[in-house]
Amino acid sequence: MHLGMIFKIIGILLSAYSISLLPPLGIAALYGDGAFHSFAATLLLTAAVGGSLWYSLRHEKGDLKIKDGFLIVILFWTVLGMVGAIPFHYAQHVQLSWTDAIFESFSGLTTTGATVISGLDELPHAILWYRQQLQWLGGMGIIVLAVAILPMLGIGGMQLYRAETPGPMKDNKLAPRISETARTLWYIYLLLTLACAVAYKLAGMSWFDAIGHSFSTVAIGGFSTHDASIGHFNSVAVELIAMVFMYLAGINFALHFTAWRTLSPRPYWLDPEFRTYTLLLTSGIVVSTLYLWLTSTYADPLQALRYASFQTISLATTTGFASTDYLSWPAFVPVLLVIMSFIGGSAGSTGGGMKVIRFLLLFRQGLREIVRLLHPNALIPLKLAGRVVPEQVISAVWGFFSLYVFIFAAIGLAIMAFGIDPVTAFSAAAATLNNLGPGLGEVGSNFATMPDPVKWILTFAMLLGRLELFTLLVIFTRAFWRS
Amino acid sequence: MHLGMIFKIIGILLSAYSISLLPPLGIAALYGDGAFHSFAATLLLTAAVGGSLWYSLRHEKGDLKIKDGFLIVILFWTVLGMVGAIPFHYAQHVQLSWTDAIFESFSGLTTTGATVISGLDELPHAILWYRQQLQWLGGMGIIVLAVAILPMLGIGGMQLYRAETPGPMKDNKLAPRISETARTLWYIYLLLTLACAVAYKLAGMSWFDAIGHSFSTVAIGGFSTHDASIGHFNSVAVELIAMVFMYLAGINFALHFTAWRTLSPRPYWLDPEFRTYTLLLTSGIVVSTLYLWLTSTYADPLQALRYASFQTISLATTTGFASTDYLSWPAFVPVLLVIMSFIGGSAGSTGGGMKVIRFLLLFRQGLREIVRLLHPNALIPLKLAGRVVPEQVISAVWGFFSLYVFIFAAIGLAIMAFGIDPVTAFSAAAATLNNLGPGLGEVGSNFATMPDPVKWILTFAMLLGRLELFTLLVIFTRAFWRS
Ligand SMILES: [K+]
Ligand SMILES: [K+]
Repeated sequence: MHLGMIFKIIGILLSAYSISLLPPLGIAALYGDGAFHSFAATLLLTAAVGGSLWYSLRHEKGDLKIKDGFLIVILFWTVLGMVGAIPFHYAQHVQLSWTDAIFESFSGLTTTGATVISGLDELPHAILWYRQQLQWLGGMGIIVLAVAILPMLGIGGMQLYRAETPGPMKDNKLAPRISETARTLWYIYLLLTLACAVAYKLAGMSWFDAIGHSFSTVAIGGFSTHDASIGHFNSVAVELIAMVFMYLAGINFALHFTAWRTLSPRPYWLDPEFRTYTLLLTSGIVVSTLYLWLTSTYADPLQALRYASFQTISLATTTGFASTDYLSWPAFVPVLLVIMSFIGGSAGSTGGGMKVIRFLLLFRQGLREIVRLLHPNALIPLKLAGRVVPEQVISAVWGFFSLYVFIFAAIGLAIMAFGIDPVTAFSAAAATLNNLGPGLGEVGSNFATMPDPVKWILTFAMLLGRLELFTLLVIFTRAFWRS
Repeated sequence: MHLGMIFKIIGILLSAYSISLLPPLGIAALYGDGAFHSFAATLLLTAAVGGSLWYSLRHEKGDLKIKDGFLIVILFWTVLGMVGAIPFHYAQHVQLSWTDAIFESFSGLTTTGATVISGLDELPHAILWYRQQLQWLGGMGIIVLAVAILPMLGIGGMQLYRAETPGPMKDNKLAPRISETARTLWYIYLLLTLACAVAYKLAGMSWFDAIGHSFSTVAIGGFSTHDASIGHFNSVAVELIAMVFMYLAGINFALHFTAWRTLSPRPYWLDPEFRTYTLLLTSGIVVSTLYLWLTSTYADPLQALRYASFQTISLATTTGFASTDYLSWPAFVPVLLVIMSFIGGSAGSTGGGMKVIRFLLLFRQGLREIVRLLHPNALIPLKLAGRVVPEQVISAVWGFFSLYVFIFAAIGLAIMAFGIDPVTAFSAAAATLNNLGPGLGEVGSNFATMPDPVKWILTFAMLLGRLELFTLLVIFTRAFWRS
């Protein structure tokens, strides 16, 4: 373990993070909404701690190993999650308890979008902006994580995506390669955000709402500046824009990059994960629309299509926006959509869940097992886009899936132990583990009524989901700490 | 496909089954309870159809192939399930609809134990006996299936147990090997049943109840002759006997056989599945007892232990007996126990669920994946009882697990589409797929209120669970029907 380097990097991250507090500080000053002091204090604190860590360790040099990579990722999310809670705790008119503040902060950064705050419309503008911005920054973190770090660490079969950087993994090239990949993809992320913000503005939102919602849309975060979420605007145009950008944000950013560079849509269609992702969303929309129409939830099929398609894309990509009170629909549809959030977005997107590629590999592998029953001695390679998938990737995907199911059940049970009903408990587990946001039952739109220990469990679940389980769990093994 | 041989075997099975209708016929005559005619008719019908199939195909000879094996197993369960429904439909004072009769019959034969009948205590004795006997016969079928057929077909990693019969699988030796293995294990099954019946009698049951409950105990079936199930007797002795025999019936029968032959308990302790099974049950009992005591559900810790241990063994082994109204407990405990039923009994037992050995393999494999993250190039073989588990077995187990989870979610959703609430729907899916019996919510003790299409879905789920998914699903593939 190279602790000097690790803390130097944390110092740099904290310093960089402190700069991100300037916009909410400016907004607090502009609106005079009483949140100025808490943001100023947080800025000074993070700049001081981050700066001094960085300065005192500035001469630290050396290679980073795999284990260092795990620690940096975990520290990055937990330290920022903790620090990010400070404004929620101290800001006037907000003053969440530490438990609530940390829940909200982790929910923002992990782009989960579950909230303990109600009365958003009356909140200080600075805090509203800050929440949206937390999600946007979280999204940036996820892109690095998903495109550069997880493939390198080989989490849950994601070594599949190591293909782009040929040759065996060279530990000592960790840092430069990450920053190079990250920079390219962040341009795309920024571009999507800009396009989304302008589109929202043209559809009638204020600039404040347009930018705020563009942040939480491309980050697949789901935070809104209104209690009624996207439903507040009651505008087909706004809903269509949200749907388009949620859909785009749920696609592997490396695909966007290739399409951009080749100025052609072909890379999308050549990608089996993209095709499955699109097929799943389409099927979800068809089923939900038909169900809502046939059960006369909406007499008008076009109304059914409008709300069903928005809610399907929102929940299946794990965004978590609401354009209407979908919890009053027959329970089949919300439950179907929460189950779809387990599949979630594509690998290398800002979406949560288990990722479409893993679902696709499990499905193909399941078919292969059936064929194997009939031809026990046949060797049937599993192919994806014409290339054979290594057995090691397949077994990592199985492992990821089983662990995901076990952890989901364990979290649901742990919540129930505090006297919470099964629908609330298991949907809360899904909503946090999948980084979805809203659940069902008591946590359909707000987590405020959950007991404190449950909020801690859910905060842990958000982090587990975001770090794709293994990244976090690995530090609880003895093998990790053996030198 | 060798259809002649297949139908000849079905003919033999039907003829044998018709003999099993003599005991309920005798009981109907003895009690004059109005069920005589329906049993007599069913006996004549099955004897006539079975006998003529057998007679007309008596000269059929030839080898059976893997595909024939699948078809025989599926036909065996579906034909008997259908025929078994006849008495429920026609018997006086019962007269279930065909849907209900078939549900009850499949529930008996698959040893699920879910019922659509209420007012058991007023039912004709012949019908009560018949229900118990269906479970007992189902248990006999399961033993052949689990110990002889599934390992040979290689379902979900069960080729692991093919080890006892060394050398590659010889298709043409299918029939003799099955009957040999089956006969030995049926002796043990019979012995357990006898011991259980005598013990129940000594504890105060009538002979009728003692034999009836011994049938459904060793079959891990869960049917009772009373609406209040084992709780009817309100006797610690009866509960202890039930616990012991449920526990024994959840152990691999091949282990009982080895222990019997060597007159030593060592084979049990050497078996990793047995140790995990025992550990899981013990942990379940400890957690449930503590929870019921700490939440003051029972003020007396011994009372908590009494009911918690019975309910844990009953649900975790997938028996489904109730010794008290456990659905009025805080929901954490029933949900925990229903989740434990997914693990279920041991392979080669009469228990349902995914089987302890698969859970154990998944767990070990999960640990191996974590170690692999830290040492990407290390080759770490997975061992069980000192022997390396072939990769093909591991991947079959992963495949089984994923498919199980997908099917569980699909069945739960399909039930919800008929307007059933989530707790009822998903617990009904678990109760049938795991061959457990009782669910939660609306199906906590009786399935009568479910709409007919839901009953058909659940009947299919029972069969899917009992045939370990693949055996049934394989015939829905194109590869199966290609010659
Ligand atoms: K989200
Ligand atoms: K059962």
